[in-house]
Amino acid sequence: MKLEFELLKKEKHTNARLGQIKYNGQTYETPMFMPVGTQATVKTLSPEEIKSTKAGIILANTYHLWLRPGDEIIKKAGGLHKFMNYDGPILTDSGGYQVFSLAKPKDITEEGVKFKNQYNGDNLILTPEKSIQIQENLQSDIVMSFDECIGYPADKDYVLQSVLRTIRWAKRGKDVFKGKDQILFGIVQGGVYPDLRKKCAQELVKMNFDGYSIGGTSVGEDKKTQYQMVEDSVKYLPEDKMRYLMGVGDPIDLVENVIRGIDIFDCVSPTRLARHGHALTKYGKINLKNAKYKEDFTPISKECDCYACQNYTKAYIKHLINAEETLGARLLSIHNIRYLVKLMEEIRISIKNDNILEFKKKFIKDYYGENYEN
Amino acid sequence: MKLEFELLKKEKHTNARLGQIKYNGQTYETPMFMPVGTQATVKTLSPEEIKSTKAGIILANTYHLWLRPGDEIIKKAGGLHKFMNYDGPILTDSGGYQVFSLAKPKDITEEGVKFKNQYNGDNLILTPEKSIQIQENLQSDIVMSFDECIGYPADKDYVLQSVLRTIRWAKRGKDVFKGKDQILFGIVQGGVYPDLRKKCAQELVKMNFDGYSIGGTSVGEDKKTQYQMVEDSVKYLPEDKMRYLMGVGDPIDLVENVIRGIDIFDCVSPTRLARHGHALTKYGKINLKNAKYKEDFTPISKECDCYACQNYTKAYIKHLINAEETLGARLLSIHNIRYLVKLMEEIRISIKNDNILEFKKKFIKDYYGENYEN
Repeated sequence: MKLEFELLKKEKHTNARLGQIKYNGQTYETPMFMPVGTQATVKTLSPEEIKSTKAGIILANTYHLWLRPGDEIIKKAGGLHKFMNYDGPILTDSGGYQVFSLAKPKDITEEGVKFKNQYNGDNLILTPEKSIQIQENLQSDIVMSFDECIGYPADKDYVLQSVLRTIRWAKRGKDVFKGKDQILFGIVQGGVYPDLRKKCAQELVKMNFDGYSIGGTSVGEDKKTQYQMVEDSVKYLPEDKMRYLMGVGDPIDLVENVIRGIDIFDCVSPTRLARHGHALTKYGKINLKNAKYKEDFTPISKECDCYACQNYTKAYIKHLINAEETLGARLLSIHNIRYLVKLMEEIRISIKNDNILEFKKKFIKDYYGENYEN
Repeated sequence: MKLEFELLKKEKHTNARLGQIKYNGQTYETPMFMPVGTQATVKTLSPEEIKSTKAGIILANTYHLWLRPGDEIIKKAGGLHKFMNYDGPILTDSGGYQVFSLAKPKDITEEGVKFKNQYNGDNLILTPEKSIQIQENLQSDIVMSFDECIGYPADKDYVLQSVLRTIRWAKRGKDVFKGKDQILFGIVQGGVYPDLRKKCAQELVKMNFDGYSIGGTSVGEDKKTQYQMVEDSVKYLPEDKMRYLMGVGDPIDLVENVIRGIDIFDCVSPTRLARHGHALTKYGKINLKNAKYKEDFTPISKECDCYACQNYTKAYIKHLINAEETLGARLLSIHNIRYLVKLMEEIRISIKNDNILEFKKKFIKDYYGENYEN
């Protein structure tokens, strides 16, 4: 069955929304943070551990899985859910961002993007049709249209041409999308230019996608610019469709962009921070490599209900990170994902209570102390 | 409370023995294979995963934990069990083998072994008394006497001097051992020389240790030589005490040495093999890096009840190993440990049924096919 989204409530004083997703007999609430399982595994975690964080949708990367092990193998395995043993909802990206950030050299034409396979040097081309075909083979639940992700800063003339191409690519993808049990999102690009964001959003909405993503953020811009790009995109999107801000995971950015009307987020940050020994806490990010945790026999966070905080001390996790034992990154990944999932739970409560702005104020005070400027 | 061993039965046709260990309200049967948790973690696994393999005792390394994070920190944490969240029995080695294999350069004197800390270059000395003190700080359940582990081949004159020193070191360690809730083993050395094995075993037995280890195997000798060294040591050991063959984990070696009277074994092989993509099966070792598993959507082993075999295919685990995702080594570690624990379960049944020699014959036929020579 297809994943279904329903808007439940709007917060009184902001654009924040409460929604629900129905999938496979389960109900998940939005706004939601989605952990990233780039190569058909959320780094260091088992499916049971992902679920223990109460995460719902997870992400997988079309570009990576196309190259390795290959979408045809995953199709033969019965799709991504069976291949990786995850029965929750899975979203796949279009490959556009990875082609933008990883594939070098690349050649962007009307047909698609030509580049060399980083593993074997083969010449490859990713097109709107190919991206859809790969995602159909992967059998994810939410499919993205192929887009061009633009860096920051970018020249307006180039962004205009790129946005027009992204619109044409979205149309081509939608035309070939058969999507048995899948839904398809369009991606709003347009860089920092409000009129181009508007153009892109409006053209995509005309095509009537099942949901809309906002792309081209988290590419080097400052926070204010990011929030503005989101505002300039969201206002042209229909209320009854899901809105997905791609690649954003800094806690304050989740709060700020929920306020601007975003429903779902993904980011590699909780697992990447974990591999570097960092833990997210109510009172900010801490680095367990710091010597002061050597004899700290308390959990990362007293308030946290995750497996790591219920069973291990900072001193032990610090030792595992120092000794390069993978259980260390695993415990921190569980904790960091749970932190973001829990943050979204608190955000949803504040939407229900119509006090997200008070929540934001309190959040900033706890997380940054007196040092936050925006 | 101290760990207690009881001999339950001897097999009719060989020296194989069935025993039981009582610890913390639990009963574990021997012969037993013990997974290795070098740095206070069995590589890639959580305590719950170790338990899911039905493993009992696990090992931790005195040398590694002394250097990092330091035995004093683990003492402050409340001991190794609390530090690493494992409530099953823990055995610590003496540091002798690691000093032998890792610490370079080293200087062996009557006092102990001098070497440089591999992490910071500090001059260190490990003595029989220091080894016991570290293990008391670690609060393991089974403590090893400090010994000199000799390579293979080794000159008889040197081995004689070394054995006499190991005996003196064992005495010194025993004299300082207070061992609240801990038991202490002596280690039989003597290289390939039956008279030196005899001398060492007899002198240690006079000191009345709680159990006896056989050291100095798995240092490059062939299988026949190893089995002979075990025979030449075991025959001087009392029947009512536990016998531990250190560092041996090849499946056939477990079978052969149980037949020679060994009760407990440890080896890093199941987790090390896992990190290299190898899986142990009834029909021999397989390498998941092999291209033929690319589209093999069956579990590693149909007969296996481990978490990996119950939930994942060879194709998926192969993908994880290829993509260097740690879940791959983790799934293979669970499987390989479960394989060895299960092998010991089957060995125990064959002891109960007095048919371990038939079991061995069948095991070899399945594992090696027609290619086994001994």
